[in-house]
Amino acid sequence: MATASERAGTFRALHQGPRLLVLPNAWDVPSARLFEEAGFPAVATSSAGVMVSHGYRDGEEMPRRDYVGVVARIAGRLSVPLSADIVSGYGRTVRDVTTTVEQVLRAGAVGVNLEDLRPTHDALFPLSVQLRRLEAVRAAASEAGVPAVINARTDAFRHAPGDEAARLREAIRRATAYRDAGADCVYPMGLSDAAGIATFVDALKCPVNVMIRKGLPPLSELERIGVRRVSFGPAASYAALGYLKRSSREVLDQGSFASLVDGAIDFDELNRLAVARAPPPS
Amino acid sequence: MATASERAGTFRALHQGPRLLVLPNAWDVPSARLFEEAGFPAVATSSAGVMVSHGYRDGEEMPRRDYVGVVARIAGRLSVPLSADIVSGYGRTVRDVTTTVEQVLRAGAVGVNLEDLRPTHDALFPLSVQLRRLEAVRAAASEAGVPAVINARTDAFRHAPGDEAARLREAIRRATAYRDAGADCVYPMGLSDAAGIATFVDALKCPVNVMIRKGLPPLSELERIGVRRVSFGPAASYAALGYLKRSSREVLDQGSFASLVDGAIDFDELNRLAVARAPPPS
Repeated sequence: MATASERAGTFRALHQGPRLLVLPNAWDVPSARLFEEAGFPAVATSSAGVMVSHGYRDGEEMPRRDYVGVVARIAGRLSVPLSADIVSGYGRTVRDVTTTVEQVLRAGAVGVNLEDLRPTHDALFPLSVQLRRLEAVRAAASEAGVPAVINARTDAFRHAPGDEAARLREAIRRATAYRDAGADCVYPMGLSDAAGIATFVDALKCPVNVMIRKGLPPLSELERIGVRRVSFGPAASYAALGYLKRSSREVLDQGSFASLVDGAIDFDELNRLAVARAPPPS
Repeated sequence: MATASERAGTFRALHQGPRLLVLPNAWDVPSARLFEEAGFPAVATSSAGVMVSHGYRDGEEMPRRDYVGVVARIAGRLSVPLSADIVSGYGRTVRDVTTTVEQVLRAGAVGVNLEDLRPTHDALFPLSVQLRRLEAVRAAASEAGVPAVINARTDAFRHAPGDEAARLREAIRRATAYRDAGADCVYPMGLSDAAGIATFVDALKCPVNVMIRKGLPPLSELERIGVRRVSFGPAASYAALGYLKRSSREVLDQGSFASLVDGAIDFDELNRLAVARAPPPS
């Protein structure tokens, strides 16, 4: 297996273009392994996906130890790089953020997402506070000897005051500061129209991450605009559970179960997704 | 919340007909809660689904403590009865089976599946051994004061020697002995054709469980034949992962993501599936 530095380097290079990095977010071992088998060059965790899967709402209700345990379980079974969403850092203080980053890197992640929305989801951290938290991420990664890819998410486009133009300006102001504080990639949560994304990308001049959601332009257009990374966010959890909901309706309303058996994987494939990919024959 | 005895009674009554009990098997909290919300009157765990989701192949590799922890997490968030698949009982001895049953009942399950295939999946337990193990399930449930529904699975149709007719005879012989030893329901793994199922049901004269798989007759025909319970087995895991596989191909090959956003659930619904159903307004 590649070292953490090598995996971090591989992951970092995927942000350099010219091709768009499409990063699927998993919630458990088989969803992560399936993305790897499908051919995605890296995988991330979805905090909402992982937390809900374990019976906690998205946020910081799930004990950090348990969340890190899931990151370790997934990382230990992937050969491609794994990036960990650490929400708001599991706590408000710089010390909290440092501890969380230390733990997810030790668990095998080589990328980290940090957001500037407080864990209570009611307000943004002041910019100066968030900058200290981001510097703590970089310092913890250096200390660990892992050149981790730091993706700095701002929720300003959704949570800053003012009209849409004012919120976009605040998202750009914050993301610029995060970039200058050492973030490798910036992530304007909630921005999904082509014009807004283009304005953001032109202003930032560094790798920008957007999230798949209804209304987002096709990947070819994002690539043309200069977006470097598009992540699934919780979309795979939403989609898989939406599919099960339709299957449930088929079973309960029609007494048939075609949607459960057509296009399904089988027992052997499921079991292969529990463990690390078999090495190629030598 | 209903007591364990009440939930066990509710679950038991669902096996009395005349309607077929359709029992979906979940692998984590949101899959279980989704089935509850869809209207299924009870939910079960899929051992393969749960174990693979946590990075272990189906069998008894996943530590029992962790497996029971998942059962507790799911049971604690459901208002409908939960049945736990305990594979071969987590060990060979009667004492192993007793301990496992004690633990899953304490975790909140009110039904148990026990199979007669050895954990190594290479051979069936001798009938006399399996009868002692089944008696231990009943004794542990009595001791716990939970009138749990015991579903005795036999793998004879797949693993006994001889041709198909001989294997069906052996499945019937074993299931009859399991029924007489106190099983509430019997489960001939691998039997999926209408004629074989009808022969089995006619011979047993007690609730019979079959598993959804390609080729199984529609639910209305199973009900007419006299089957009392049809479970998903790992079908929901197979289907959800098959769906994600198709979505992955769409994203990677076409650069579009309609299958990730059309028919998907949303953030609020995902978070609702993390926690117990809200009580109806009083």
